[in-house]
Amino acid sequence: MPFRDECGVFGICPQTEASRQTYLGLYALQHRGQEAAGICSGDATGLHLHKALGYVADVFSEAVLDSLPGDAAIGHTRYSTTGGNVASAAHPFLIHGRFGQVALCHNGNLTNTETLRAALIADGHTFTSPSDSEVLLALINRAQADTLEDAVVSALRQAEGAYSLLVLTEHTLIAARDPRGFRPLAMGHMNGTTVFSSETCAFDLVGAAYIRDVAPGEMVVVPRDGSPLRSVFPLPKVQPKPCVFEHIYFARPDSLVYGKSVMVARREMGRLLALRHPVEADLIVPVPDSGVSAALGYSEQSGIPFDFGIIRNHYVGRTFIEPKQNIRSFGVKVKLNPVRHLLAGKRVVLVDDSIVRGTTSKKIVQMVREAGAKEVHMRIACPPTTHSCFYGIDTPKRQHLIASYMSLKEIEGFVEADSLGYLDLKDLEACMGDDGQGYCYACFTGDYPVVPEPKA
Amino acid sequence: MPFRDECGVFGICPQTEASRQTYLGLYALQHRGQEAAGICSGDATGLHLHKALGYVADVFSEAVLDSLPGDAAIGHTRYSTTGGNVASAAHPFLIHGRFGQVALCHNGNLTNTETLRAALIADGHTFTSPSDSEVLLALINRAQADTLEDAVVSALRQAEGAYSLLVLTEHTLIAARDPRGFRPLAMGHMNGTTVFSSETCAFDLVGAAYIRDVAPGEMVVVPRDGSPLRSVFPLPKVQPKPCVFEHIYFARPDSLVYGKSVMVARREMGRLLALRHPVEADLIVPVPDSGVSAALGYSEQSGIPFDFGIIRNHYVGRTFIEPKQNIRSFGVKVKLNPVRHLLAGKRVVLVDDSIVRGTTSKKIVQMVREAGAKEVHMRIACPPTTHSCFYGIDTPKRQHLIASYMSLKEIEGFVEADSLGYLDLKDLEACMGDDGQGYCYACFTGDYPVVPEPKA
Amino acid sequence: MPFRDECGVFGICPQTEASRQTYLGLYALQHRGQEAAGICSGDATGLHLHKALGYVADVFSEAVLDSLPGDAAIGHTRYSTTGGNVASAAHPFLIHGRFGQVALCHNGNLTNTETLRAALIADGHTFTSPSDSEVLLALINRAQADTLEDAVVSALRQAEGAYSLLVLTEHTLIAARDPRGFRPLAMGHMNGTTVFSSETCAFDLVGAAYIRDVAPGEMVVVPRDGSPLRSVFPLPKVQPKPCVFEHIYFARPDSLVYGKSVMVARREMGRLLALRHPVEADLIVPVPDSGVSAALGYSEQSGIPFDFGIIRNHYVGRTFIEPKQNIRSFGVKVKLNPVRHLLAGKRVVLVDDSIVRGTTSKKIVQMVREAGAKEVHMRIACPPTTHSCFYGIDTPKRQHLIASYMSLKEIEGFVEADSLGYLDLKDLEACMGDDGQGYCYACFTGDYPVVPEPKA
Amino acid sequence: MPFRDECGVFGICPQTEASRQTYLGLYALQHRGQEAAGICSGDATGLHLHKALGYVADVFSEAVLDSLPGDAAIGHTRYSTTGGNVASAAHPFLIHGRFGQVALCHNGNLTNTETLRAALIADGHTFTSPSDSEVLLALINRAQADTLEDAVVSALRQAEGAYSLLVLTEHTLIAARDPRGFRPLAMGHMNGTTVFSSETCAFDLVGAAYIRDVAPGEMVVVPRDGSPLRSVFPLPKVQPKPCVFEHIYFARPDSLVYGKSVMVARREMGRLLALRHPVEADLIVPVPDSGVSAALGYSEQSGIPFDFGIIRNHYVGRTFIEPKQNIRSFGVKVKLNPVRHLLAGKRVVLVDDSIVRGTTSKKIVQMVREAGAKEVHMRIACPPTTHSCFYGIDTPKRQHLIASYMSLKEIEGFVEADSLGYLDLKDLEACMGDDGQGYCYACFTGDYPVVPEPKA
Repeated sequence: MPFRDECGVFGICPQTEASRQTYLGLYALQHRGQEAAGICSGDATGLHLHKALGYVADVFSEAVLDSLPGDAAIGHTRYSTTGGNVASAAHPFLIHGRFGQVALCHNGNLTNTETLRAALIADGHTFTSPSDSEVLLALINRAQADTLEDAVVSALRQAEGAYSLLVLTEHTLIAARDPRGFRPLAMGHMNGTTVFSSETCAFDLVGAAYIRDVAPGEMVVVPRDGSPLRSVFPLPKVQPKPCVFEHIYFARPDSLVYGKSVMVARREMGRLLALRHPVEADLIVPVPDSGVSAALGYSEQSGIPFDFGIIRNHYVGRTFIEPKQNIRSFGVKVKLNPVRHLLAGKRVVLVDDSIVRGTTSKKIVQMVREAGAKEVHMRIACPPTTHSCFYGIDTPKRQHLIASYMSLKEIEGFVEADSLGYLDLKDLEACMGDDGQGYCYACFTGDYPVVPEPKA
Repeated sequence: MPFRDECGVFGICPQTEASRQTYLGLYALQHRGQEAAGICSGDATGLHLHKALGYVADVFSEAVLDSLPGDAAIGHTRYSTTGGNVASAAHPFLIHGRFGQVALCHNGNLTNTETLRAALIADGHTFTSPSDSEVLLALINRAQADTLEDAVVSALRQAEGAYSLLVLTEHTLIAARDPRGFRPLAMGHMNGTTVFSSETCAFDLVGAAYIRDVAPGEMVVVPRDGSPLRSVFPLPKVQPKPCVFEHIYFARPDSLVYGKSVMVARREMGRLLALRHPVEADLIVPVPDSGVSAALGYSEQSGIPFDFGIIRNHYVGRTFIEPKQNIRSFGVKVKLNPVRHLLAGKRVVLVDDSIVRGTTSKKIVQMVREAGAKEVHMRIACPPTTHSCFYGIDTPKRQHLIASYMSLKEIEGFVEADSLGYLDLKDLEACMGDDGQGYCYACFTGDYPVVPEPKA
Repeated sequence: MPFRDECGVFGICPQTEASRQTYLGLYALQHRGQEAAGICSGDATGLHLHKALGYVADVFSEAVLDSLPGDAAIGHTRYSTTGGNVASAAHPFLIHGRFGQVALCHNGNLTNTETLRAALIADGHTFTSPSDSEVLLALINRAQADTLEDAVVSALRQAEGAYSLLVLTEHTLIAARDPRGFRPLAMGHMNGTTVFSSETCAFDLVGAAYIRDVAPGEMVVVPRDGSPLRSVFPLPKVQPKPCVFEHIYFARPDSLVYGKSVMVARREMGRLLALRHPVEADLIVPVPDSGVSAALGYSEQSGIPFDFGIIRNHYVGRTFIEPKQNIRSFGVKVKLNPVRHLLAGKRVVLVDDSIVRGTTSKKIVQMVREAGAKEVHMRIACPPTTHSCFYGIDTPKRQHLIASYMSLKEIEGFVEADSLGYLDLKDLEACMGDDGQGYCYACFTGDYPVVPEPKA
Repeated sequence: MPFRDECGVFGICPQTEASRQTYLGLYALQHRGQEAAGICSGDATGLHLHKALGYVADVFSEAVLDSLPGDAAIGHTRYSTTGGNVASAAHPFLIHGRFGQVALCHNGNLTNTETLRAALIADGHTFTSPSDSEVLLALINRAQADTLEDAVVSALRQAEGAYSLLVLTEHTLIAARDPRGFRPLAMGHMNGTTVFSSETCAFDLVGAAYIRDVAPGEMVVVPRDGSPLRSVFPLPKVQPKPCVFEHIYFARPDSLVYGKSVMVARREMGRLLALRHPVEADLIVPVPDSGVSAALGYSEQSGIPFDFGIIRNHYVGRTFIEPKQNIRSFGVKVKLNPVRHLLAGKRVVLVDDSIVRGTTSKKIVQMVREAGAKEVHMRIACPPTTHSCFYGIDTPKRQHLIASYMSLKEIEGFVEADSLGYLDLKDLEACMGDDGQGYCYACFTGDYPVVPEPKA
């Protein structure tokens, strides 16, 4: 139950009913953002955009999809980080400029947004929102370039940080990924159609086959006329650093991310966790849903039985009205309910994917203990998260990350666990099949592959 | 993935913010009905009703709950069996009659509704909907009785079939259960307050403790003034026959139903299934979510590893728009996605709770096989369902139940499984700790405890 | 700007698209009630009902009208007199009873509702709302009668007060009007189809021709099979007393009510008002919209120019948000705006249809004076309203009617007019072509044709 | 019933609750645009925007107005000229650029939009909509100027055509009007607060006094700190040409436009029309609402009685569902109903403000004749409209204007009137107190004060 990711992207070209296929793709990527959704579709006669706050199923109706014709489309699901009227920050963004109509959506955060934005403003450009997508579009539009493709390359050369982006014009669909490859972007195909998605679970729903990832630093151009797609690597080559948290928490377990099974990785994390932090116990209980695979791995390795000692209510929506005179906390209870008759008298190992502020973990431990557990041992399927992310994950400021200011023992005390164990970084690397160079572990180490601009 | 249940009920008295507590209760009972929700609250000055189509979280707002004052309340979540404008059939029903205002909601189906209704109409009564709740209210109102309690008893003496009902008046909250106890009704308490609920998971959310079930044939009267509750058994005693399908499928796994853990029963079903129908395989995969506990039991008994080879998309809502030119079936794929890299090349045991028409099972088997499974063995955690239910479960007519017209081998062929095994009735009884007399198994045996009236 | 009426009714039979025609009829009767609307349609296979809070155009969509098939329909627009959740009080009401399905809606108030209701409750009947429509339906259902028609007659014999009602069954459409004929009910035809409506403006929209009124005390039966309609007069004959306020205020000016032009009557009221209460002035200004015709008549008779010195904003909706720190009253200003350059320095005669509490009139006089009028003379196109209505008009209690406790001079002072004149009762009679016996003038005289039951 | 206007604007500074006051202003300007509404408010800490499709009363709620703090605000009501998803074209527009946040809304059309837009795009700018407001904002942002005021001046020097605009920044509210003064813009004050509005009826509602118009070519700067407002005339002086159609049709009759009473002007048009085109008749009937004042003038001059022979249904909303098998036209009938008993046997003079395509006039004449009128004479309170407008009025293309291709006699025949008379241009000038130079009469003469750019 940790950080929240900021987006899922999906694109398709060429394909009849491109917007309906994109709707399917977004449906499968709903877990990557529930605040807003949008699709831009079109063909040589022009682009069409619809985006709004809400779930994919609520934002799009038959009538809306009918108003999005064309044989190519890009779409986006968004988790917003700011309050208020965020409708203006929903993706995709569509501009009319020197290359005609150009739409863009992306997953990830630029780390030099303010610098670029200030320069663009000084140069006479204007923005309608704080989104870094608008910055990317402005860079494209103002590039010293004659073709859109060259303009996109020019923009990518100026942008720093994390982006897996899709660009739609009247002639082309372009996909690109930053040189570090911070955020995922998979490529698939179906009968002459190329598809892109943050995760492969969207391919499964539209019926496409996964081919490979768009590589870090790669730009793939899909012409609308069906001619072969082109791949270029216009940026200086650097060591890729894809985000490891996709496998720890974000991605759907049925997805391949970076070509690697999320579910298999999680199970292995649980297995190694059991090896390093064994404990005598009666029951392995996952914090649902994100701790399930690791808990299965822990159970497998330890031989201690696994069961759903905590049940998640999947009907929980946005609104929940608490009693006015209430003194109990509903924050966790509305979503999670301990299974009293399963936990009573047991020594329980709670497996979760991560700890952020520690307050939720504390409530869960209390809840399990009140349900009758004799002992509650907490096992976390990743190392202590000590640093904020600047590459597209909505983390709190560093000072709010409990592991940044408390020792293991102190955290153990704070969450009131009988014992606490985190996965070692080395073991995490092993689970990912990594030699220590292949992923971004900055939230555990503070070793940032790209230094962010100082905050104003 | 079988039948759908028709209701959840919740009641509370006396309690400040009774309607808000009932809202919590219904929130926890949402899985028992997503079509409509309603709450009637009140005190000596009158009753107040709000009911509408939709989820609990959508039907009730702060303003609506503020319009439902009083220290007692009853509520209902409904799954509707008929199409069209079903708002008129939402519960609770509220009448003004000789006992003043009386509200009622219930879970279950009367088996002599048409007979009673015809007699009441002949006697000058009128109805505003086809609901058997209105029939119960009419029986109460027309009873030869001087007090409301006696009138309720009179009504219960005429009603046949299944009902777990709650009655609210300006003075009293009454709970009653039919003599067979077909549908569940649990009783709890918290600081002098009595609560009733279809399942104990609602007690967990409001913070009440489970005491016992309202017994089959029992009527419990909770006076609003805080005086002790009264229990009577006004009906001829018969062998109770609570519905076993609550444990197989309906109830939330964290609930106690009939005082017995749903989750524990399901796991035991899976364990016995593995004992009776073993198979050489590599992976135990549940059909989520209802097959999960049985699959864990099957894995435990067989020693074959368990994993989530099929992932359920929990964001699936009511609307889903398919591509117009689509030739693939989205019925199952929207909700369930096979984990290709987990299933590929494996001999898989699929564990589900039951098979109704067989078409969904067939699609799931196909899906798993297309994802690369080498063998697909289907294991069902209950006996073949061969007969329709008349006691409150929305089953298809008998001729649509695949097990009513196909042999085991034929079903195996139809769903295209490499092998198929059902739980034996004897084993099901064993899981429930039953000697064969204690539950209604009519959907497996056709042995109906109460004979329904012939359909017009 | 006085009292608010409580309903408009419309019925049609037989006619393809009966519900769509009824929608048209209600559209034209929207001014008679904006709180709720409903249509019940059907044929020999059953009746279908849809009703909800809101305007006709909002309550009914294409989909809703498609769900209301059948060749006969009745509909209703409602102004509700009580707050809270009034959805349960919207018309029509539909019951299932001994005559099968029966739907009813009406305009008017019974004066013995509580007596009838108490007797019915004592006899075992129940009600779902406080509506007297339900009482009428109960009387019909419980009548000692073999046919529905006889049952309706029996019900009418027990009901006292004001009703213009429509009854729809699977076989028949029935229209009836109380013996006094308090509320209007016109009958029209178009190509073999019979239509009923509170006002003829609805006939204009559906394209029907006005034939005559349903007579006071008459019941008209329209068989669905196209056989001739039957008229009966089952009630003792009394002197009819139709409500004169329809012509003063309620009805649309383009309607015939009681076969008499509303607009012509209003103009004549203004003319006689000018004759009896002349004044030296520069400008005749109506309080829009209800005072317009009388003001034209006053201008015509007096020779003083007429102009719209007050403009009404027709976009005013239900919600209007006032500034929080506001000290000015927006009650009248939101809807009415004085035309400063027209009024400045003028001696103005303000013509309105009536004065209820006096507070609105006072605000309007102030507003006109602040806009620069030198003198403001108020002329009211009816006698002082001194008594409450019990026949279907939402008047305040007698003690709130300013004319019940203030003299003419005192009212003049209260509203701060330079002079005030009311139409004499004799003149009102003359405008209606009446010898003093033909209409109900109870709100001016307290001479109630039917004595209401004492309030509990 | 002619052309539709495209906007109303309102601005206020400094004032607590500026957004709520602007809401009031837009409420009064609702007749100038019902498609969309928007408000941008703010202070030195930033600007806040809310805009959406719909009526003012629907677009803004208490919560929305609470989210629009600050002591200055601008607002807009919009009539959209294009179909589809026009939300992106609602005003105001808000950009982040070199002057910080700048919001703009305007009434009117630039005549060199495409030229400016093409140049801006060539220069690297991008647009999110086809709105010319965005072009104005881009010109402001890219001006060779150090201050916002100078930048606005620079933009105005490039813009051609019609604009009455309001600009809001964190420091200033600016109002400006094109040199011809095509569209109105009034200025008022209240207790140290300056207000701007398209019409003075908005001043009446907020309680402000009209001072004068923003002059053609003038720019008024209202500092937020309460220091005196500054007026500059930065543009070359030309002969002003305010749109005369405001007085003929658009403006509310209670407004002053260009300091001149709309109602008085309309009445005078009717009077002169009677002088030039007299006819023997029994009744003067306005086409409501726009023909009312002219009809009163015609009646006054001719001595023929005036009455509302056509009644307008003010409850007509956006949606109206016609019977499916309908053969009659509901286009006019839904809104207008002839008063049969008033028209029957009469020689009727129908007075309307203008004729556009002629089809509506034809339907109204038919309707009046079918209601029994013996003769129908049509009188139009303006000259024949023969040319399209390029300055902010939504007129059809020239070839669809009936007067552009038919003679008077032919139009008379087309609309099937017994006679037809238009107001002469000279008389129109007289009504406006004009010597023929003071207003834009281009829709009657084709004499365009500003030549529009050729359409692509």
